Amino acid sequence: MSGAAPGYESSGYGSGKVGVGKRPAVLVVDLQLAFTDPRFPIGRLPMVHAATERTAELLKVARAHNVPVAKCYTAYGSAADMPHWKVSTVRDEFFHGHPCTALDPRVDEPGYDFNFCKSAPSMFFQTPLITYLTKQGVDTVLITGCTTSGCVRASIVDAFSFGFRVMVPEDCCGDAERDPHESNLNDVGRRYADITDARTMMHYLAGVNSGAATGARARAQAL
Amino acid sequence: MSGAAPGYESSGYGSGKVGVGKRPAVLVVDLQLAFTDPRFPIGRLPMVHAATERTAELLKVARAHNVPVAKCYTAYGSAADMPHWKVSTVRDEFFHGHPCTALDPRVDEPGYDFNFCKSAPSMFFQTPLITYLTKQGVDTVLITGCTTSGCVRASIVDAFSFGFRVMVPEDCCGDAERDPHESNLNDVGRRYADITDARTMMHYLAGVNSGAATGARARAQAL
Amino acid sequence: MSGAAPGYESSGYGSGKVGVGKRPAVLVVDLQLAFTDPRFPIGRLPMVHAATERTAELLKVARAHNVPVAKCYTAYGSAADMPHWKVSTVRDEFFHGHPCTALDPRVDEPGYDFNFCKSAPSMFFQTPLITYLTKQGVDTVLITGCTTSGCVRASIVDAFSFGFRVMVPEDCCGDAERDPHESNLNDVGRRYADITDARTMMHYLAGVNSGAATGARARAQAL
Amino acid sequence: MSGAAPGYESSGYGSGKVGVGKRPAVLVVDLQLAFTDPRFPIGRLPMVHAATERTAELLKVARAHNVPVAKCYTAYGSAADMPHWKVSTVRDEFFHGHPCTALDPRVDEPGYDFNFCKSAPSMFFQTPLITYLTKQGVDTVLITGCTTSGCVRASIVDAFSFGFRVMVPEDCCGDAERDPHESNLNDVGRRYADITDARTMMHYLAGVNSGAATGARARAQAL
Repeated sequence: MSGAAPGYESSGYGSGKVGVGKRPAVLVVDLQLAFTDPRFPIGRLPMVHAATERTAELLKVARAHNVPVAKCYTAYGSAADMPHWKVSTVRDEFFHGHPCTALDPRVDEPGYDFNFCKSAPSMFFQTPLITYLTKQGVDTVLITGCTTSGCVRASIVDAFSFGFRVMVPEDCCGDAERDPHESNLNDVGRRYADITDARTMMHYLAGVNSGAATGARARAQAL
Repeated sequence: MSGAAPGYESSGYGSGKVGVGKRPAVLVVDLQLAFTDPRFPIGRLPMVHAATERTAELLKVARAHNVPVAKCYTAYGSAADMPHWKVSTVRDEFFHGHPCTALDPRVDEPGYDFNFCKSAPSMFFQTPLITYLTKQGVDTVLITGCTTSGCVRASIVDAFSFGFRVMVPEDCCGDAERDPHESNLNDVGRRYADITDARTMMHYLAGVNSGAATGARARAQAL
Repeated sequence: MSGAAPGYESSGYGSGKVGVGKRPAVLVVDLQLAFTDPRFPIGRLPMVHAATERTAELLKVARAHNVPVAKCYTAYGSAADMPHWKVSTVRDEFFHGHPCTALDPRVDEPGYDFNFCKSAPSMFFQTPLITYLTKQGVDTVLITGCTTSGCVRASIVDAFSFGFRVMVPEDCCGDAERDPHESNLNDVGRRYADITDARTMMHYLAGVNSGAATGARARAQAL
Repeated sequence: MSGAAPGYESSGYGSGKVGVGKRPAVLVVDLQLAFTDPRFPIGRLPMVHAATERTAELLKVARAHNVPVAKCYTAYGSAADMPHWKVSTVRDEFFHGHPCTALDPRVDEPGYDFNFCKSAPSMFFQTPLITYLTKQGVDTVLITGCTTSGCVRASIVDAFSFGFRVMVPEDCCGDAERDPHESNLNDVGRRYADITDARTMMHYLAGVNSGAATGARARAQAL
């Protein structure tokens, strides 16, 4: 768009590709029942359901090749430790112990994955994720989950900011609406990340040297 | 948009207002010459120029009422400490000492403002900003600068995540294109922040009890 | 010590006092059963037991005057998300769900306090504490718990780094040994914090304007 | 110390060694003129001068073997962005542009090292260091500089917290006094890090596969 004025294309945005590294991890943002179970107010979004199924397939490949997997959900102790959310469901229900904070069983494998709670949009914001990734020697993160225009976007920006190579398989990300989904992928695709798909990423994960991340598999076996 | 499927409006997003607090600060994102001087590759964006002029007006009111002002620019030592940017201008020119990293004089008042360098999209990511705001007792931040769909967006998300009340005067924010500007304001306006304008914020700042932030003025006088 | 060479006293360390502000919070570091219940390997330290009792008294005053209270414990998902600890008990037992991670009931009041898990020595390191303190408008933190020469020290340094006024009531802090306790209080007392005691802090908390922190009490009542 | 009561040795502290990894970096804390030039109030500490000379030797080996080097100094814009320091020299002189903030030329090689400003005791606290280390694929950090009982200690704790293997060559660290130096090495050596010396670390660095960190050398050559 943008007519005669200089826009993103002519300004050097979206130049080149990030490219993958040697030690990937798969990150899953907020695939908790609040977003994936129809009994909750925001649990009926078709794009999120499709992304959950697609992410579950991607995770099977990741685990089979000993690639680290980290998943988060959002929950609070009370209104006192909660940012000023304008989303009524979050303010009313996202508390520790509420069933909407449980991870969707389709994407979960507790003995293998690193699961943790976050309190802000980004999966990295004041969470132990960066320590886990440093210990695993990760250089590349695949970001999946929901919503593209909310917590996925925030997690992409922070993963980039920490210096990781960021891949976004777009069919593993879901949103309430199509336009913000695409608009956000455009925003991050011209600045911070490569936009890709689950099939391409499965092929990449299948080719990773599994010796690179022995910790994750060894850990799962020990549990 | 999304037709019959449940979208943001019916899902409890955008419910309520954040509202302002008692101790605001004005934050200015990346109004450095790279974006505001036409001799640089991305320095000719009309929305950014308009936002710079409008922000300059807002800052005059802020300083007159003793409200803290913090401004950042983006610069690196070398490619080694730089995230994997897909923006060629950033990769080629955003280095310490390069003229494109100087703050635009229209918005600068060095003896008053807190100016600092950042290395990621967000003005908060691994910068001393949170310490400055804590010391000043700030509860509300007004976020201005460029670009709306990049570093402004990232700074809004982090300000929200730290627990501040976030106000976005949209005429103080600029982008390369109109669509991402509006799409990002929609994204954050339904989740994290109140979208407002410079005039409304000037009126708010003029009514703030100036005793609340004596540090900033005292500091300016001492220098 | 230090003989004729220039030491801390002659070098401008320990000059002045930090002094308290208007909106305190009490922070409690790691008073979990691992350290306070004799059935665990490091649960028999006399200084820690004394500190727990003293902190319980301080917390009663804090809650009676509507002062925010935040408490943390340390726990991990598995060895994969754990830093390279040289403490065998931490490596062997500090996992989610293990009884040694439960907070000591003498200091706990769940409906009032903000309780959370941390994964590093500092109570602030990648935890939601800074957001809670920002939302409560806190400017002063009282740091208590154990151990003085480990997680208490780390939490003091981070609280200082974020710009808070830091008070350390030394009889509310415990250690395995007397020497490291005192040495660490000397280290931080000449740089980052005022060393004080529970009685002085109770007097301070009793005089705080309780309107300053209505959030905490309102929250407790709502639960 | 503590007599018959259980102390650190009987409580499982100091069990095992951290051990080195495959991709080290050398971190240098605050070897700026304030601490290394006798014309400044805290610039005459004998242990710091010895540590500067020893660190300079270690850095020569690191650079010869293409190992990343990061160095920091401490400086502020004004009192408004400064934590509540109790050290008069910091409050009076540690400002941007003051000669006491310049790095000591004995340890500096600007085209090779990553140099940056910090605003808190820890070299990691809200600085771009973590991004630099992630991009370089570092798993092990050697921490040097001053002072052991202040900024070195804080940097060790944060490096550990981020999941790195932490080595402290004690003859590369200096303090105003001998007792706090040793006490802090004991504290961290039983919890977070291996205490070692420059000679051992030079031998380690000389054996690192230099292909592991081609970025640093390539960068230096490009400048």
